[in-house]
Amino acid sequence: MTSLNDLPIRDDLRGREPYGAPQLDVPYALNTNENPYPPSEALVKAIGEAVRDVAGSLNRYPDRDAVALRSDLAAFLNRDTPGAGLSWRQVWAANGSNEIIQQILQAFGGAGRTALGFEPSYSMHPIITSVSGTAWINAHRDEDFGLEAERAVAAVEEHRPDVVFLTSPNNPTGTALPFSTIEAVLSVTPGMVVVDEAYAEFRRAGVPSALTLLPRNPRLIVTRTMSKAFAMAGTRLGYLAADPAVIDALLLVRLPYHLSAVTQAVARTAMAHGAELLGSVDALRVARDDLVAWLRAEGHQVADSDANFVLFGRFADRRRVWQSMLDRGVLIREVGPPEWLRVSVGTPEEMAAFRTALKESL
Amino acid sequence: MTSLNDLPIRDDLRGREPYGAPQLDVPYALNTNENPYPPSEALVKAIGEAVRDVAGSLNRYPDRDAVALRSDLAAFLNRDTPGAGLSWRQVWAANGSNEIIQQILQAFGGAGRTALGFEPSYSMHPIITSVSGTAWINAHRDEDFGLEAERAVAAVEEHRPDVVFLTSPNNPTGTALPFSTIEAVLSVTPGMVVVDEAYAEFRRAGVPSALTLLPRNPRLIVTRTMSKAFAMAGTRLGYLAADPAVIDALLLVRLPYHLSAVTQAVARTAMAHGAELLGSVDALRVARDDLVAWLRAEGHQVADSDANFVLFGRFADRRRVWQSMLDRGVLIREVGPPEWLRVSVGTPEEMAAFRTALKESL
Repeated sequence: MTSLNDLPIRDDLRGREPYGAPQLDVPYALNTNENPYPPSEALVKAIGEAVRDVAGSLNRYPDRDAVALRSDLAAFLNRDTPGAGLSWRQVWAANGSNEIIQQILQAFGGAGRTALGFEPSYSMHPIITSVSGTAWINAHRDEDFGLEAERAVAAVEEHRPDVVFLTSPNNPTGTALPFSTIEAVLSVTPGMVVVDEAYAEFRRAGVPSALTLLPRNPRLIVTRTMSKAFAMAGTRLGYLAADPAVIDALLLVRLPYHLSAVTQAVARTAMAHGAELLGSVDALRVARDDLVAWLRAEGHQVADSDANFVLFGRFADRRRVWQSMLDRGVLIREVGPPEWLRVSVGTPEEMAAFRTALKESL
Repeated sequence: MTSLNDLPIRDDLRGREPYGAPQLDVPYALNTNENPYPPSEALVKAIGEAVRDVAGSLNRYPDRDAVALRSDLAAFLNRDTPGAGLSWRQVWAANGSNEIIQQILQAFGGAGRTALGFEPSYSMHPIITSVSGTAWINAHRDEDFGLEAERAVAAVEEHRPDVVFLTSPNNPTGTALPFSTIEAVLSVTPGMVVVDEAYAEFRRAGVPSALTLLPRNPRLIVTRTMSKAFAMAGTRLGYLAADPAVIDALLLVRLPYHLSAVTQAVARTAMAHGAELLGSVDALRVARDDLVAWLRAEGHQVADSDANFVLFGRFADRRRVWQSMLDRGVLIREVGPPEWLRVSVGTPEEMAAFRTALKESL
């Protein structure tokens, strides 16, 4: 039998393991930061009808530039962040924000180039970076998982990266970045600055979005996703906002017709029901704040969270706690800094199961 | 205003134009080798229902490994090519065969590595190759667009590529390769050999598929698509068959959850209606053979075709002919070797419009 090592794969891939949280069938899946609230019956019906409407022409290629969907996404961002003032030419979409990140690295990274991030952070940033042939530089976050402007600037000035990843709110810590850090990094970075805002809709009141910085910064890219607040993880729709010239660059590397006609139709239908989908966000923020308070009351260390998950610890043997939770039907995530665990914010029932299982596991 | 050239894009991307045939609204679109026969009402309804069935859980991530879909694809290939004997572990799927090709190059190409193809051929092969940081080597096809084993072997022995692309039937020429060429290339290539069979279902009787070579060749990859014979270009579903170890390699570079729950549902529904979808293949083959005969009777040079398109010529000013056809509502493709044009095989009505427009244009 042939094994992976018998094949002429790239040397730097040898010995690696595929990325991915375990996909287990458990009563309480709190490990991938999904939105626990499924689409309503009305939206389910609308999605079925929208796809039926395009199914009759699925023998034809989709709109390669997905203009209608990009217009919808721009309209949403303009509501989300007053003053953003975006047109569809400043918005680009792909199959999940992972593909967005990949396209950015294909256009602005590559052999001989570097991308820098501040870990612990989204673990796909270094993976996609390295698959694209770009060298990854890990500049660490502060002890409290924040990132002070001065330290961020020093890291950028030392390494002069072609791409910088800032993640706000950060996964897996939940930490949002102050504008001062983002602006300071923009002012010294020679390359592109990507602010990954996958969890932005969950941010606490008063926390700004980097979208408002776009007009003055053509090298800024803000990425978003429909997987989290929009409760559409199964649809795979990530997007970005940036200067139209950035999108011109991405057109050189995107796979033609990368977004199917079906994906475009489903995402547009979900966008049209945005009020419903985002209706769960307020409840999830309250549940998150309650969860943080409860964990602290229980004596745990908890990172401030502007996202729909909470990082808590510290456990000398986190694997044991993770496994014990799983044995009780509660799947959380063993990710991020050692001794910490991450739990997604779920429904009241899921949160009750989490609390019970955690108490039993300690 | 910022322009693309003001941005720090990769040097080798500077000055390039985005790939893509013009997407024009014309009465007769014969430029992207789509299947002209839309899904039946019954299939349209089934697709709508299948998506409605998964829509209720779109807040959750899809099956990352798409096992059910891969099983369906394996079953189809086993019917298509008796003796293939494939299991789902030998089949992998992605958003169009472009993403399949990209994943192959990400795993087996990269900086310092080379991929070799025989042009004229599918123009995305060199583009995806170069975006992946792999160097592209063009070893030419024979004058008649075929590829004799001896010449192919000589090119491989000279360049020792990490990836070889063989395209059968070849786009844009329609030419199928004899087994002798494929086997000869396999026997001397140190790297992976990709046989792109996007148009395989249209091959003439007696023309074999490289699928039957898989059991003895763990470095062989056969790629297929649902965009052509399966009339599902809008769904974006490409796939491959290979040794399970090859798929282990692709798992290291694939974006997690790359295939949406919706794409998986639509593709499975189309596969379940495979008899209907492939029912048009016989008609299209007959129409293709008629088209070849008619073009030859009209005095044109025509490449033998095992695909759903025909390359014909030669025109000292092919742009003028292309434009004149377009002015008459018939969009064909200006692609491939100079002086040649490519036309997709359409419905009887579309073929009649093509014949009329061509006569008027000359």
